[in-house]
Formats: sequence, structure tokens, C-alpha cells
Amino acid sequence: MALKLYGAPMSTCTSRVLTCLHEKDLDFELVLVDLFAGEHKQPPFLAKKCKHQIFILFCVCIYQIPFPFTINELYFICVQPFGQIPALEDDDLTVFESRAITSYVAEKFKETGYDLTRHQNIKEAALVKVWTEVESQQFHPAIAPIIFQFFVAPLQGNSPDQTIIDANLEKLGKVLDIYEAKLTSTKYLAGDFYSLADLHHLPYAYYLMKTPAASVVNERPHVKAWWEDISTRPAFKKVAEGMNFGEK
Amino acid sequence: MALKLYGAPMSTCTSRVLTCLHEKDLDFELVLVDLFAGEHKQPPFLAKKCKHQIFILFCVCIYQIPFPFTINELYFICVQPFGQIPALEDDDLTVFESRAITSYVAEKFKETGYDLTRHQNIKEAALVKVWTEVESQQFHPAIAPIIFQFFVAPLQGNSPDQTIIDANLEKLGKVLDIYEAKLTSTKYLAGDFYSLADLHHLPYAYYLMKTPAASVVNERPHVKAWWEDISTRPAFKKVAEGMNFGEK
Repeated sequence: MALKLYGAPMSTCTSRVLTCLHEKDLDFELVLVDLFAGEHKQPPFLAKKCKHQIFILFCVCIYQIPFPFTINELYFICVQPFGQIPALEDDDLTVFESRAITSYVAEKFKETGYDLTRHQNIKEAALVKVWTEVESQQFHPAIAPIIFQFFVAPLQGNSPDQTIIDANLEKLGKVLDIYEAKLTSTKYLAGDFYSLADLHHLPYAYYLMKTPAASVVNERPHVKAWWEDISTRPAFKKVAEGMNFGEK
Repeated sequence: MALKLYGAPMSTCTSRVLTCLHEKDLDFELVLVDLFAGEHKQPPFLAKKCKHQIFILFCVCIYQIPFPFTINELYFICVQPFGQIPALEDDDLTVFESRAITSYVAEKFKETGYDLTRHQNIKEAALVKVWTEVESQQFHPAIAPIIFQFFVAPLQGNSPDQTIIDANLEKLGKVLDIYEAKLTSTKYLAGDFYSLADLHHLPYAYYLMKTPAASVVNERPHVKAWWEDISTRPAFKKVAEGMNFGEK
């Protein structure tokens, strides 16, 4: 059975997985789940509670509350307890959390497509793990609030909060200072090879580069060159076509 | 050459790695690095900048600024660009970020000690990855600010900020609601086997259980039983003896 990915192309976490699937040259079916569209149609209380699968089934089955989800979306919520996209279905196994999905795909299909984890070299594989965790623990916590303010806050009727943007840009700048130093000695983060560690940065950085905060990348020559390299790989260019979050 | 771990037993991230090393029955040398002790002896400016290795070497080598770090601490800062503990040295390889270290150790020594990753069963291994990411992306961002307020803020001369504690306790409660539901069907997070996914929760949860916020665990019977199980494993009990952060 083909792999089935539940997600939305404009979502950062879905596009992280899509990029991985394309790098691995895998066939898969994308099942569109737009929880955001579902949620914003609902009264605030229901929107808040809709992430709990039991509550949803309760609403649908017991109280017959009219529900704005499609059957695909409803199925998805039932297999992903946190109610977040994406989730990957591989036969009878459902994997969620985007970084767990990419790690599973890269490991299961290690002999297919591009080698994202350097599985034949334990030291290089260790460095891929290190810089994958750096993305998760250092880069992501700084960039995520910036993207939220620029793209999500306006859709909620709020202006981007410049104080939050500035505080997190300062944090992100410090992380990118370390990247700048690292990228003077190796072409990519884990070494002179593109890996999952670089790939995981793509979706958030892609949206960042559409904002005035792009300067935090452009001001650092090695980070800028790295970004231009990884964002022009065919696998990501294909994914980026669907990343139109916040566009009219 | 034996494994060498740079860290401090009371640090949450060091104790995550220590627990993993004990579960794997590995010999290792613990090299004490107490950056906190180093930092709090310095003027604020220097404390802020001390995480940058180039600046440190600049101070020591060019300006001969008296420095509160031991030679071990200084060496550590030079191998770990983010200036954070722990880091693991394995021959000529240095691995940092606690979750990358545990993943490296569990993979390299998969045939030694307790099997933390279910490496012989691809589906179980995938579920270990999933719940390891849940700890990293859902549990950690909620619990970390609570531990900071209870233990670190007082050492900085501030009272714990109850607003921050309450906001994050609400987030943590929602995450633990999902755990409670999951733990009704399996004994541990990834299945009926203890794994890296459970282990990663131990250090922060250990400090949480020393605070009034422990009720967020105790009020959920399956989460409470899970906590009592995983925190009484011999490997963690040994590590917990050194976890005295915030004690007089």
C-alpha cells in the first residue's frame, strides 16, 4: 500500500515531510486536511475543544452537532491524538510529529533516493542527529513566534506584535551567529553533505524570507549562501509551490 | 577510550544522558562542568557573553581577563558551540544536545544493556520516535518554564512568576490529558515497553514533582502510575541522587 500523508501543503510541518518524501523519491498520496479552515468556521469554544478526538466523536455521534470537518479530516483527528497535521499512514502504522515522520521515512527507506541520515557512517550520522536537535531546540523556538506574528496573527484579526518579533529576532540572530561560524568550516550544518538537519530548517526559513526579518539571514554571508543552496534543491522547490500561507 | 561526558549531575539535560548511559550499562567518565557556578561569579555582561567560545578565548588569550572557569570548563566551551551542557566525547567525536546524545548512545550500543529504541521492530521503533518527539515538542515547552520559575528565578533573586506558572500548567495539563488517554491502552508511551520516549521525560518531571505543581501529575491516575514506574527504575534512581538543583 502506498504511503498516505495527511496534511496541508501550506503548513510548515507538512512541507517538512513533503520535502523529505520528494528527496527519497517515494510515491505517496497526499490527503488534504485543513484543520485551520475547519476551526475558523466554528464558535470559539468548539474550536478550542476540537483537538480532542473523544470530544469530537461525542459531538458527532451522541449530540449530532453539525460539524465542519470532512470525513478525511475527522478520520485524521481520530488517528492523531494532538489533532495536528501532518500524520503519515504506512499500512497499519500511523506516525505523527513531523520530525518523527522524516526520521522514520529516512530510516525505513535508507537505500532509496537521497541519503538524508548518512546511515553508513556512524560519526556523520551522529552529527546529523546533533544538528537536527539544534534545529528543534535552538532554531525552532526562536523562529516559530516570528512566523506566527507575521502570518497567523493577522488572520486572527491582530496586528503582528513587534515586541515579540524583536525579542525572538534577537534570539534567532544568536543562533545564526553559531551557524555562520559553523558554515565557514563545512558547507552544510552536519558536514560537507546536505542532510535531514538542513532540510528541517526549510519551511520556517522559507516563510521568514518573505518578511522584513529576512535580513537576519541576508546579513550573514555563509548562512545566506547555505539558505540559497538548500532552498533551490528540486525537492524543496516542488514543495514551496504550495506554500502560500498568508497570501490572498 | 572510555566515553567522557561533560556535564553537571543536577542539570536536567545532563541527567537525561546519565540515565541513558546507566540503562545501557556503559562505562564512562563524568567531567564536571558547572557553567552556572562559573557564570554567577561574573559581572552580568561577561555572564551574558560567556557562551561564545571565541569571546572566551579572546578574553583569556588576548586580554588576560581573569576567568572563573576551570580548564575542563574552558575545554568544554570550546567543543560545544552553544556553550550548554552536556556534551559527550567518544574518541574524536563530540556529540551535543542531550536528545542527540541519547539517540547516538542508544543506536551505537544497541546490543548493550536495555534496548531503548526497539531497533529490531521497525513499527515499535517508529512509535518510540513519535513519542520522543512529543516529549520534545509538546511536553518540554510546557514544563520547562515552570521549572525555571520554581528553581532558577529564585537563584536570580526573583520570586517565581505565578502567571507564567499557571499559563504553562494549563498547557502541560492538556498534554498530560493526552498522555492519560494513551496510558489507558499501553503501559508506556510508545507501547507496552519502556523506551527512550519515557526516559526523556524523567529529569524535568523529577523537579516538577518537588513542587506544588506535582498535582498536575497526581490528579491523573495513569500518568501518576507511569511516573511512579519510570522514576523508580534503578538507572534513574542512581541519577536522581545527584539532582539537587535549588536545594540548600
